[in-house]
Amino acid sequence: MNVVDLITKKRDGGEHTDAELQFLIEGIVKGAIPDYQIAAWAMAVYFQGMTAAESTALTLAMAASGEMLDLRDVARSELIVDKHSSGGVGDKTTLTVGPIVAACGLSVGKMSGRGLSFSGGTIDKLEGIPGWQAQLSAEQFRHQLRVVGLVVAAQTTRLAPADQLLYALRDVTGTVPSLPLIASSIMSKKLAAGADAIVLDVKCGRGAFMESLQQARELAQLMVSIGSGAGRRVTALITAMEQPLGRAVGNILEVREAIDTLHGNGPQDFQELTQAVAAEMLLLGDPQLRKKRESAGYEVAADTARLRVRTAIDSGAAFAKFAEFVAAQGGHAAFVIDPERLPAAPVALDLAAERDGFVSAVDAREIGLSVVALGGGRQKKGDAIDRRVGVVLAAKVGAQIQTGDSLCTIHATDTPVAQFVASRIRDAYTFAEEPISVSESSCSFSPVILERVTR
Amino acid sequence: MNVVDLITKKRDGGEHTDAELQFLIEGIVKGAIPDYQIAAWAMAVYFQGMTAAESTALTLAMAASGEMLDLRDVARSELIVDKHSSGGVGDKTTLTVGPIVAACGLSVGKMSGRGLSFSGGTIDKLEGIPGWQAQLSAEQFRHQLRVVGLVVAAQTTRLAPADQLLYALRDVTGTVPSLPLIASSIMSKKLAAGADAIVLDVKCGRGAFMESLQQARELAQLMVSIGSGAGRRVTALITAMEQPLGRAVGNILEVREAIDTLHGNGPQDFQELTQAVAAEMLLLGDPQLRKKRESAGYEVAADTARLRVRTAIDSGAAFAKFAEFVAAQGGHAAFVIDPERLPAAPVALDLAAERDGFVSAVDAREIGLSVVALGGGRQKKGDAIDRRVGVVLAAKVGAQIQTGDSLCTIHATDTPVAQFVASRIRDAYTFAEEPISVSESSCSFSPVILERVTR
Repeated sequence: MNVVDLITKKRDGGEHTDAELQFLIEGIVKGAIPDYQIAAWAMAVYFQGMTAAESTALTLAMAASGEMLDLRDVARSELIVDKHSSGGVGDKTTLTVGPIVAACGLSVGKMSGRGLSFSGGTIDKLEGIPGWQAQLSAEQFRHQLRVVGLVVAAQTTRLAPADQLLYALRDVTGTVPSLPLIASSIMSKKLAAGADAIVLDVKCGRGAFMESLQQARELAQLMVSIGSGAGRRVTALITAMEQPLGRAVGNILEVREAIDTLHGNGPQDFQELTQAVAAEMLLLGDPQLRKKRESAGYEVAADTARLRVRTAIDSGAAFAKFAEFVAAQGGHAAFVIDPERLPAAPVALDLAAERDGFVSAVDAREIGLSVVALGGGRQKKGDAIDRRVGVVLAAKVGAQIQTGDSLCTIHATDTPVAQFVASRIRDAYTFAEEPISVSESSCSFSPVILERVTR
Repeated sequence: MNVVDLITKKRDGGEHTDAELQFLIEGIVKGAIPDYQIAAWAMAVYFQGMTAAESTALTLAMAASGEMLDLRDVARSELIVDKHSSGGVGDKTTLTVGPIVAACGLSVGKMSGRGLSFSGGTIDKLEGIPGWQAQLSAEQFRHQLRVVGLVVAAQTTRLAPADQLLYALRDVTGTVPSLPLIASSIMSKKLAAGADAIVLDVKCGRGAFMESLQQARELAQLMVSIGSGAGRRVTALITAMEQPLGRAVGNILEVREAIDTLHGNGPQDFQELTQAVAAEMLLLGDPQLRKKRESAGYEVAADTARLRVRTAIDSGAAFAKFAEFVAAQGGHAAFVIDPERLPAAPVALDLAAERDGFVSAVDAREIGLSVVALGGGRQKKGDAIDRRVGVVLAAKVGAQIQTGDSLCTIHATDTPVAQFVASRIRDAYTFAEEPISVSESSCSFSPVILERVTR
């Protein structure tokens, strides 16, 4: 096979065979195909796209490029369940749904990433708990999955190395925003990590990588199609990311909010998303619920799933599972049991409203970038971060405010930086004279769950 | 400036500034920009194109990336005149127009290339004359231009190094067929080689890189626009390349046909093209003709130019200039004066028609590739070639033939290879029952000159 012919084929709108994609991926991993040919091919894919069949073949080839975890022998449930979020602002959902689902008896073995630009990362958040470790050996990972039923580890370089090489190249060649390349990158890691059932949380809006509902829908459909083509059970939820999720944005602040939510005291939107994602994971992974769904239909089974989620929260089982999980990975459970003890930023500055009215928008991307400016996120990979800093929103979309009311609290390392960021956050707020009506049709602020995509 | 931003800008259809293109070209030459970023950018250019202003800025930056020849002090005429052909099958035009125009008093200092795939190269042809040398030092080049008024040398690596690097990368990344990249590649070398006036012969048809008239027209217009933007006088002729030009295809066979043509005995189509290109060169480069054109109009001046071309041929001055030029570059003029002495292939196989009828097409690309199969051209750069082999067409488009008439003579190293190629050449011929009508509107076989493009 000739690489120039493959580039030319894609450039001219052709459809790759499975063998061609396997040849490309093997060439990337072996270093047999030079970077410049892969870069040109990726740009051709950006313009010409890929069919679902091509995307599936690419995903399978990338997943097979390294270690493929088989966790069945250490699973407490029949199926290994995973979730993935496409990234957003204030998205601490893994911290809540993992313990809930594990408390319901499913096995959740998850690889997570770090934050970049406006988007946070699960590993950064959990590392805010003193002692907690993300680097686990394969043996530690398997042991904890068997004993605790919940493990969250940093992505290893052994899984889907082709994706890591391809992503690094896309990152410096302007070829990141290609739906088939995004979908295959996400799904190859999920397949290699040994998941049988996957719930995808595809974020949509100003604080997400997919800004329009149409884009988010296409990505969700493509990933569901890839997962199904690979023999996995996959459900995708398209969820709103116009304003930040919940109230807390910033690593340790989000851990606190997750703990509140596991106690049943979280912000309404985050509580709603947590329960929806957890219920979908149960629907995919729990054998009884799968049977009920087959016999009585989705809505009946979903009601049961939601009830089990609420029971796990209300009984304290979910929170207890979280504390057990934190301790298993070296964290001090005392910080979780009494979150007031978690490290806090030295400065807390209240931002007061300068007018009366209704909050009509809180730009999630701007809030995310403000947290980066506070030192709580990364401009580029490898940047050091301060996990204590961030923003807690007092007023979200729909809130009626009067002059002097608090819009949010800025948690910062010192007052000058807090004041510097305050004006950016003020600009992220938009106000209206009249009460805000909730639109269900657009990729807007409410409701949280916009669409559900299955095969 | 950030390279990813520039790739993204072009990917999204933006227009580069002059400074951005200069930054890219300097980065290529210094090695400061990695190949993979250039490759992704080139693919984005393939899809999004470039404006005439961008193409001109890119050309100027590439021309300025190395040595810029200034040949005015050694010119015999006010302006240095050059010609360029976009490449075809049987195109030996430089061998005839160079001596004609030099015999008319203009200075022609030309860099030429070698053949690749179906397309021949001037240097390969001239090297068929025993002793003739293409590698000249800068001093030799200047000396010969002053003394003889005509010099043809192999492209040096000192001119437009950015183009050499970019072309090598395009060649392996599927980004060769991009009009602005083709145009800037050709024009940057012409500008760096010191030409004040340039006649472009843009070939069009099955034996050319531009297969449609529309493509050829766009390339011609873009190159004329770039040349004019760079302060040069440029005329482009779009010429037919459906069937081979003239009758001879193959290096030494083409030298013989060029010599015949300089004696006034060439095939009609090649004679026509030679005179047209030479006349356009005179019109651009000769001060008297330029004045006449301004006072009396193009047609009157063109008539005078054509008369001078015919006079140069009929008087023997053009042939004498060719012999002088060959000798100046180490060639043995005796071979030129008596071309029967030029090396000949051991086997000459006549291919006979198997039916009666009219020749309706002779696929130039197939004939070119047949000569490659005979060993007379290259499949890839650096391949050794046998300059003696090739094909001489007895029947071209329009010819009435009867069973047994000779279609062509195949000159080969041995009989088996000649027979092997014979069937391919037979397939390159198409026949009709009725006489062929000559279409002027399509990029077809006749007339030779399809369009003339000026600013």
